[in-house]
Amino acid sequence: LNQTIADSAGAVVDSSAACVFKICGLNGTELAQRLVPLVLVEGTRLSVLDNFPDLTLRLELPAPDKESLERLRDQVRALVGSYIYAEADRTLEEIVGALLLKKKHTLALAESCTGGYISHRITRISGSSVYYYGGVVSYSNDAKVLFLGVKRETLERHGAVSRETALEMAKGIRERTGATIGLSVTGVAGPGGGSTEKPVGTVWISTDSPIDHEARRFAFDGERERIISAASQAALDWLRRCLL
Amino acid sequence: LNQTIADSAGAVVDSSAACVFKICGLNGTELAQRLVPLVLVEGTRLSVLDNFPDLTLRLELPAPDKESLERLRDQVRALVGSYIYAEADRTLEEIVGALLLKKKHTLALAESCTGGYISHRITRISGSSVYYYGGVVSYSNDAKVLFLGVKRETLERHGAVSRETALEMAKGIRERTGATIGLSVTGVAGPGGGSTEKPVGTVWISTDSPIDHEARRFAFDGERERIISAASQAALDWLRRCLL
Repeated sequence: LNQTIADSAGAVVDSSAACVFKICGLNGTELAQRLVPLVLVEGTRLSVLDNFPDLTLRLELPAPDKESLERLRDQVRALVGSYIYAEADRTLEEIVGALLLKKKHTLALAESCTGGYISHRITRISGSSVYYYGGVVSYSNDAKVLFLGVKRETLERHGAVSRETALEMAKGIRERTGATIGLSVTGVAGPGGGSTEKPVGTVWISTDSPIDHEARRFAFDGERERIISAASQAALDWLRRCLL
Repeated sequence: LNQTIADSAGAVVDSSAACVFKICGLNGTELAQRLVPLVLVEGTRLSVLDNFPDLTLRLELPAPDKESLERLRDQVRALVGSYIYAEADRTLEEIVGALLLKKKHTLALAESCTGGYISHRITRISGSSVYYYGGVVSYSNDAKVLFLGVKRETLERHGAVSRETALEMAKGIRERTGATIGLSVTGVAGPGGGSTEKPVGTVWISTDSPIDHEARRFAFDGERERIISAASQAALDWLRRCLL
């Protein structure tokens, strides 16, 4: 990864004085709690940018010092672990793209509540056509049946927002396209469409690949755009973890 | 349409003193040229916000005056015409959504170079599931054949970025889904993939509906994200014009 370090004003800083971590899956408070045991050299500057759904952690030593910086990075890695998705100013879709390319995987998407936003994030990256087959925005039940082969019975019995539908969507897109990984998202982005059992923010994400076929339920807060953004981030992060 | 007028600092202004026009399909210079003949009451403030790919034109009289404001609006309508897509602070996807709903149409999308971004814009709007069936992101040739029924021969003879492919994509998505309108986009978002004949920024957009089946070629400038944004705007604007 190409490491570019900028200070808070955007000026480039000696890369033996500063480092950046991109983090997802934690909020600002959770990150702060994890960083409590951190031992800092006097004069070190620590900043967290909470740019939802991403966190950017920057650490800057008072002077360049390769060894101290490496010790600091090791501490952060031990405390934050796999929530770190990059040690440079990269986006999650760039990291996922690089992993798909490296592992020679191809991806196909089946999106409902995210409405094409994950596909947009993937295709923002130039060269994504090498690993991205394409996908389906199955915004209606008919689209889930027609393009993904989801069974009408599954939709009637469990609903469009369910483990069963998410699993069939991921399997359907993978089988039909021949991609090595199928990823699906189905949920309630709101503000309408929620119920006691499946409130607004309920999202099922599923992957289908040669090694697993799983689904997980997530519960996101906030407005429609925030739920779509959070769901896209969770889906891409799951994909990243599958590829590690 | 719900008319909310804010001054440049965001404060709400008497709606008989100010008005807003949202404009697309013109750049700032083209708009300025069209506005040259405008006759303004002394003290009127005119501002243009160029928030690509949108322009927002605001006009504010020195004091509330319903009649003068209506004359001013009439002048703007005459000079700018159908490039005005809203007379309030609305997005193009909101306007298109409201038109689809009003005209009882359903929409299905077939996106290549825009990679799901149009679908994302449509589904940002809450309630879009009433008029949006869903769509296909046919990022590979295989996806165009599998999900849209584009002929291999068309792709080989004319290429993925061509009038013929765009027409088959729009027809394919409409026929397969039963939506009343099919909209397709295929182009070169760059930075790679361009040629002398089809440089980066070449985009074909096609619609298929009970009343027409057309394709048009566009040439956009700039970086990948700007081309994707411009193509999504042109496609939504075409849809708006079809629905008027």
